[in-house]
Amino acid sequence: MMEGLKELLKKVKNGELEVEEALKELKFLPYKDLDHTKIDTHRELRRGHPEAILCEGKSNEQILDIISEYPDEQTVIATRADEETYEFVKGKIDNVVYHEKADIIQVGKSREKGEGVISVVTGGTSDEKVAEECAVSAEIMGNEVRRIYDVGMAGVHRIFSNLDKIRESSVVVVIAGMEGALPGLVSGLVSVPVIGVPTSEGYGLYLGGISPLLTMLNSCSPGISVVNIDNGYGAAYQASLINEEK
Amino acid sequence: MMEGLKELLKKVKNGELEVEEALKELKFLPYKDLDHTKIDTHRELRRGHPEAILCEGKSNEQILDIISEYPDEQTVIATRADEETYEFVKGKIDNVVYHEKADIIQVGKSREKGEGVISVVTGGTSDEKVAEECAVSAEIMGNEVRRIYDVGMAGVHRIFSNLDKIRESSVVVVIAGMEGALPGLVSGLVSVPVIGVPTSEGYGLYLGGISPLLTMLNSCSPGISVVNIDNGYGAAYQASLINEEK
Amino acid sequence: MMEGLKELLKKVKNGELEVEEALKELKFLPYKDLDHTKIDTHRELRRGHPEAILCEGKSNEQILDIISEYPDEQTVIATRADEETYEFVKGKIDNVVYHEKADIIQVGKSREKGEGVISVVTGGTSDEKVAEECAVSAEIMGNEVRRIYDVGMAGVHRIFSNLDKIRESSVVVVIAGMEGALPGLVSGLVSVPVIGVPTSEGYGLYLGGISPLLTMLNSCSPGISVVNIDNGYGAAYQASLINEEK
Amino acid sequence: MMEGLKELLKKVKNGELEVEEALKELKFLPYKDLDHTKIDTHRELRRGHPEAILCEGKSNEQILDIISEYPDEQTVIATRADEETYEFVKGKIDNVVYHEKADIIQVGKSREKGEGVISVVTGGTSDEKVAEECAVSAEIMGNEVRRIYDVGMAGVHRIFSNLDKIRESSVVVVIAGMEGALPGLVSGLVSVPVIGVPTSEGYGLYLGGISPLLTMLNSCSPGISVVNIDNGYGAAYQASLINEEK
Amino acid sequence: MMEGLKELLKKVKNGELEVEEALKELKFLPYKDLDHTKIDTHRELRRGHPEAILCEGKSNEQILDIISEYPDEQTVIATRADEETYEFVKGKIDNVVYHEKADIIQVGKSREKGEGVISVVTGGTSDEKVAEECAVSAEIMGNEVRRIYDVGMAGVHRIFSNLDKIRESSVVVVIAGMEGALPGLVSGLVSVPVIGVPTSEGYGLYLGGISPLLTMLNSCSPGISVVNIDNGYGAAYQASLINEEK
Amino acid sequence: MMEGLKELLKKVKNGELEVEEALKELKFLPYKDLDHTKIDTHRELRRGHPEAILCEGKSNEQILDIISEYPDEQTVIATRADEETYEFVKGKIDNVVYHEKADIIQVGKSREKGEGVISVVTGGTSDEKVAEECAVSAEIMGNEVRRIYDVGMAGVHRIFSNLDKIRESSVVVVIAGMEGALPGLVSGLVSVPVIGVPTSEGYGLYLGGISPLLTMLNSCSPGISVVNIDNGYGAAYQASLINEEK
Amino acid sequence: MMEGLKELLKKVKNGELEVEEALKELKFLPYKDLDHTKIDTHRELRRGHPEAILCEGKSNEQILDIISEYPDEQTVIATRADEETYEFVKGKIDNVVYHEKADIIQVGKSREKGEGVISVVTGGTSDEKVAEECAVSAEIMGNEVRRIYDVGMAGVHRIFSNLDKIRESSVVVVIAGMEGALPGLVSGLVSVPVIGVPTSEGYGLYLGGISPLLTMLNSCSPGISVVNIDNGYGAAYQASLINEEK
Amino acid sequence: MMEGLKELLKKVKNGELEVEEALKELKFLPYKDLDHTKIDTHRELRRGHPEAILCEGKSNEQILDIISEYPDEQTVIATRADEETYEFVKGKIDNVVYHEKADIIQVGKSREKGEGVISVVTGGTSDEKVAEECAVSAEIMGNEVRRIYDVGMAGVHRIFSNLDKIRESSVVVVIAGMEGALPGLVSGLVSVPVIGVPTSEGYGLYLGGISPLLTMLNSCSPGISVVNIDNGYGAAYQASLINEEK
Repeated sequence: MMEGLKELLKKVKNGELEVEEALKELKFLPYKDLDHTKIDTHRELRRGHPEAILCEGKSNEQILDIISEYPDEQTVIATRADEETYEFVKGKIDNVVYHEKADIIQVGKSREKGEGVISVVTGGTSDEKVAEECAVSAEIMGNEVRRIYDVGMAGVHRIFSNLDKIRESSVVVVIAGMEGALPGLVSGLVSVPVIGVPTSEGYGLYLGGISPLLTMLNSCSPGISVVNIDNGYGAAYQASLINEEK
Repeated sequence: MMEGLKELLKKVKNGELEVEEALKELKFLPYKDLDHTKIDTHRELRRGHPEAILCEGKSNEQILDIISEYPDEQTVIATRADEETYEFVKGKIDNVVYHEKADIIQVGKSREKGEGVISVVTGGTSDEKVAEECAVSAEIMGNEVRRIYDVGMAGVHRIFSNLDKIRESSVVVVIAGMEGALPGLVSGLVSVPVIGVPTSEGYGLYLGGISPLLTMLNSCSPGISVVNIDNGYGAAYQASLINEEK
Repeated sequence: MMEGLKELLKKVKNGELEVEEALKELKFLPYKDLDHTKIDTHRELRRGHPEAILCEGKSNEQILDIISEYPDEQTVIATRADEETYEFVKGKIDNVVYHEKADIIQVGKSREKGEGVISVVTGGTSDEKVAEECAVSAEIMGNEVRRIYDVGMAGVHRIFSNLDKIRESSVVVVIAGMEGALPGLVSGLVSVPVIGVPTSEGYGLYLGGISPLLTMLNSCSPGISVVNIDNGYGAAYQASLINEEK
Repeated sequence: MMEGLKELLKKVKNGELEVEEALKELKFLPYKDLDHTKIDTHRELRRGHPEAILCEGKSNEQILDIISEYPDEQTVIATRADEETYEFVKGKIDNVVYHEKADIIQVGKSREKGEGVISVVTGGTSDEKVAEECAVSAEIMGNEVRRIYDVGMAGVHRIFSNLDKIRESSVVVVIAGMEGALPGLVSGLVSVPVIGVPTSEGYGLYLGGISPLLTMLNSCSPGISVVNIDNGYGAAYQASLINEEK
Repeated sequence: MMEGLKELLKKVKNGELEVEEALKELKFLPYKDLDHTKIDTHRELRRGHPEAILCEGKSNEQILDIISEYPDEQTVIATRADEETYEFVKGKIDNVVYHEKADIIQVGKSREKGEGVISVVTGGTSDEKVAEECAVSAEIMGNEVRRIYDVGMAGVHRIFSNLDKIRESSVVVVIAGMEGALPGLVSGLVSVPVIGVPTSEGYGLYLGGISPLLTMLNSCSPGISVVNIDNGYGAAYQASLINEEK
Repeated sequence: MMEGLKELLKKVKNGELEVEEALKELKFLPYKDLDHTKIDTHRELRRGHPEAILCEGKSNEQILDIISEYPDEQTVIATRADEETYEFVKGKIDNVVYHEKADIIQVGKSREKGEGVISVVTGGTSDEKVAEECAVSAEIMGNEVRRIYDVGMAGVHRIFSNLDKIRESSVVVVIAGMEGALPGLVSGLVSVPVIGVPTSEGYGLYLGGISPLLTMLNSCSPGISVVNIDNGYGAAYQASLINEEK
Repeated sequence: MMEGLKELLKKVKNGELEVEEALKELKFLPYKDLDHTKIDTHRELRRGHPEAILCEGKSNEQILDIISEYPDEQTVIATRADEETYEFVKGKIDNVVYHEKADIIQVGKSREKGEGVISVVTGGTSDEKVAEECAVSAEIMGNEVRRIYDVGMAGVHRIFSNLDKIRESSVVVVIAGMEGALPGLVSGLVSVPVIGVPTSEGYGLYLGGISPLLTMLNSCSPGISVVNIDNGYGAAYQASLINEEK
Repeated sequence: MMEGLKELLKKVKNGELEVEEALKELKFLPYKDLDHTKIDTHRELRRGHPEAILCEGKSNEQILDIISEYPDEQTVIATRADEETYEFVKGKIDNVVYHEKADIIQVGKSREKGEGVISVVTGGTSDEKVAEECAVSAEIMGNEVRRIYDVGMAGVHRIFSNLDKIRESSVVVVIAGMEGALPGLVSGLVSVPVIGVPTSEGYGLYLGGISPLLTMLNSCSPGISVVNIDNGYGAAYQASLINEEK
């Protein structure tokens, strides 16, 4: 925007443009401005955080369309993408990579790694998909990620043996199902922020992840905040913002 | 905003202000702009729709503070205001009226009545408070209001005897508790838009008004939209916007 | 009814019918009357608003039967109809059109366009089906429709660049998923009524659209009313009634 | 039981059995008794009300097993049975009839019709399956059933034209989806008991039938009681008990 | 209505009224009719079932007003009325009686007792208020009522010792809190219709009576229908309708 | 029962009673029997487990009445009893003790202590009332109770320092609020059954204890079962039954 | 751990290891310890309770991996395993048995039977899968199990005829759907602990098992605790812990 | 711990303690260790984050007891404390300050301010209490706090005029009621982490804050995580941890 604005002001200065006419043109400036501001904001963010597309509920054509709308240099993360979608887009777009475990299609290159570290901790095997969505997203955003998986009930000792590593992180993302107590446990042992991600996979009165979400919100260990059920990408984004503070 | 902007452009034209400096000043223009836009929008709206303050959960002092912040010519509606609050503010602010049945404190004068008519229909005695909040708000906003109260189960014939009057309205607000079927019934008999307002007073599996709200959302008679439980003011606002279309 | 009644009265006057017998015949008049009234009402509405059939949960045979029951001149909208149903009915009924994006089968012709305009605004790609159900329905009902799609988070500037067009509408239908904040944002920028339509597509604690519905009901920007989740047709109907007020 | 007990008492009388021994044998009599009592109760009920099996969630083999356990003269109603199950059992069991519209397999003959009449009223096409489950069950239980279908919104006049017939019934079962207001409407027009049956088919905030169920429970028209969502059989059973009172 | 209509027809016959004028007057007849019909219906019902007013959420003045609107010969039941309300109305209205245990104000006399009997069964001490609302209402409506209280868990044997009496009733109202299993138990032992009334008093995951309501709706013993939580009056009304069938 | 039965049989044997007459008398035996059986069962249970009365929602008179109905030798536990109720009953009943911390009125003496031990573990100060209801009830039922209070987050080490003691118990009752993770933690450290009791005191999305209840039901550590929110007595009863197994 | 620790202490004693160095090594001992403690705990538990894997939501490969991680002598229970998974693992792992009715893959041998008995009681045919998960799990854990199936409504007498057997058990697991009243009924008849397991299979307002769960939690018969919906394994584990107390 | 352990090892080295005996003593080391670890962890945290006590639901005596248990140098934050509690403790404890707007009792001194800044943003007047709990807590924890209050709907421009200040913060806490859209709006404008705090004050289908919580969880603007409803302290704690990263 600033460029266009500068031109406009120059024209006013040079008498090429009348004040009234300039005013008329500026009438929608706030909106245009906001538009550009958004894009500026985005450009700024973009250095760290690629645009994301949720593929779930979109057709392959729609996904391709959305990806194509972004400028070439823009890195794009398409989450919850199955292999079929990847096969569909890969011939039509350059620089496409499929992160299979994470169900992520990456378009463009990852940001260069910064200094801080994000730990991604999971309770069990069934949390892996969400964890990988988080870990891969965070890596694309330029973070070093430490995966500390499968440290729920049966392997809680692994938390302890990894405690120093976790404590060195800027932020810990804890992905947990079942009763969702893991983030509270981790949070009690470290002095860095913990982001809890409940997962949807369970049975009985699990309520699709509402049960662990409630647990995390009611944790008596402060230092936990939560994102939506299964929202690995959202956790990565928030963690990346925190990590950048470092 | 436009005034300030004009001045700025003139200064650029006159050489009083350098392009770079003007650019700097314009940097926050979008935000300032939006600010002014908001206010313009508000000014525009204000002609019809006074500002509203929800008194519930605010102290008398806070309510007084908020009212005082508005410019003198601005009409203000303070909803869910009890008499005690009215006693508190009435000496300190001019042009204050208390609509007792509606729990509304009005500051400033009502807008002049337009042509259209809003019908406010209720099912029973316990819907009266919400109905009056709606009716009085709509009157202050400059609408002619027809109160057609107490036409639920025991008095459904009164709908029929008032049907022509209802049909002449631009819009009907139907306030209903119990099973909340009244809006659907009314909607089936008229060809003007119906706004349903569920009320919170009930017992058993009434769920504080969720039951009639669900009824209204699932009504098989199209032409109904709903506002939040007990939200008489919101219904009045929406009805007033519709009535202005007339 | 009036015709039959006139005949009856004439017969009484002419002595062809005894008072007692006429009375007997009139005994069920209220019910018959109401019946006719309904039909009259419907006839009246019908000029603007075609009958609608929800295809979901009905067999092709049932849908065909229902369509066939309507008189020939009656326009019918069959919503949530898949192509297979269309294939089934198209040979057996005249004047059938399939609006594929909207999943709507139209039987008979659209009403002539009136003066007012309805804007249909969506947040993102996944709201398109509901938006098309709304837009196509509104068009069949004789409204000019402006589609302003995909103006959620990533494209909020498009609202601003379309603001004048939206402001010229009689009513805006805003279809939104995710957190459902779009109707509140739009409502804050315009002074025409806004109808919010939450969509069911989401994940996590989205609750099939209950989350955006709650957002819309609790919006601090007055001037919003809502219809049921995914109810594009219902929003079109209500918007059409409002637009007719113009 | 009585037979065995009589024998036992005779033996005591005849000195064939000592008091202490008889006492010992009688120790478990309460339980055995209750057992027999149950069966007696059932035998008594059986004259009116056949045994019912819910096929949903059972394998064909399990259904066949359960049917086979009943004595030959016992009439059995198997609800929610698909045609495939019928094909499976029909060769292996005598006197089997399949009521296709009702998804009911009937084993044995229907009870002879009594004097009273049950009206089964529905709102729309999608309530038919539940209505037929109700109507067919009631017929097998020996009731005359009047089907008054499809009298919702679009056809409410049909209620009025059938009002005398409905008023002559001992009890009215009203099956309704959408907002579930139909039972309340019917109940307001008749002075016989109304049993409401919400149906599960709907969309949006329909909540699988919870919405119409709440409506029925909160109806301001007394004289309505409800059974579980989709429970056509349960409504038939209750209605049959009421009808027998006649 | 019929009287007025007869006059009108006579006038037409006599030439006192022109057909066109009569037609004009009859235009609103359906609505007036319905009005009268309602009243007729009510008059008919009134023989058995007095009008009811829910006092909860109404002021003493409002309650008095509503009572005063009824014709003198009309018996009125005001439920959930506290003693203070009774004190307020008793001087101003004739024939007022206060049923303290039931929180019922009765205006006018009870209907004469019919032949059938209604059993009112409760699980425990805390169900008494709802039970008395039911029992007293049913008595005013002209039913003989058998109170069989306090037969829950600790006193289930009392059901058995009263079984014949219960079996002789036309209908059994079972009022139950806790897990709400009592109606199912009773229903399994009798062959008359059972109406379940969940009560709101409980703790923990009792959910204000939703827990016993769910139990009753899911009962595997058919022959049960339910009314809203705490709705003793509604159960009495329904039971009275059933008892009249006898 | 057995006595009466013996007499009856003797009379049959002696010819004092005819078989038919005896049969008649025995007709209702099952019910009477069950009655007696219940009492027998109760007598048996009574040795270990006193009768309990929930005072909440009952008047002092009602509580006194219920207590008075029990035979003198019967120990009675009245839970959720405030001091005022105690003052009311203490003069009128013998052997009354008030356990203030537990809100329990005890009538009669505690059972003699058996061998096993029940540990009652709490997370924090606000769980104390429920814990005392549990501990005192268990003591009255004849169990040795170890109170291990306040071992939540801030004091989790106290679990470890008490681990041997906990491991020696037959059963552990864990009372917990907040996120309700304590039972799972304890269960993972011991090999005796754990009974979880969620408490109702909390804020935010605590949902009156539903949050910790869900946590306990979804615990990934097997060996936990739960009782209702705040149900200290119920946990004591269950724990006492388990302890008796020892 | 103790072995390693002993070695370490010996080295200190022998001067092979300096105090400072030993201290350094001991620094992480707590964590390592806890690790070992866990394993010790597990080893101890293992004698009775095999490790369990929930197959639902895991791929065959993941299940095989997890099983393979356990030491050979460790018995493993894989629940909710379909035949296909069994076919996948059976060639690759030794000592694999498939319990078809229970959907359980057993790896390794069952523990030797102890003295106590667990009764597994079900209400109906549709509870069988959960019941078998419970019964088979309990048998593998070394318990004698008595299956008392299908004793709901239609067969409640079977409870009575099996009452002595049930009373001899250390603990009763009652698996129930529908209204979930069975555990309360059983609990009222026995003086051993009852564990309730709600099942998820139902319809209408069954809420996937929430309805019977609420019933069990609100049971007025003390002595019941519950596990999660369908959690047959969890009930078996808890029952086994209780049975061991015997 | 380390000291005791060193002594122990020395004794082993010196022969004062036998290996077996040392082993015995070390047996409980893990637990003792963990205890100390906890305390160490706490000591470490304490430098930044004072201990917190939730006063709600605790008696003044209990609160005093808990405060007294902490060592003198430990700063304590007692949240949701009313003035009465402050009056109770202030004479008995040193260094007590009452933050009235925040309902916080502070014992001991605040930590020295670090470099980073936390912005606390609110939507309206009714969010102030929660905001102050957050702001004061964060200040005590040693953070510079910028209060940007009352920037909801009516004052959204204030966000824009404060945008640079917000952007300079390490983290933004956004406290919002109504539809809860504010965090998403803020998050879209900044590139620092946003923590959303829903507030409980509202009406209609506000559900005590569940509505804004759902909005925040479903926000389409990534970079938001949430804490429990009204949990100002929790947000402060998390924000403080993030701010320390700076």
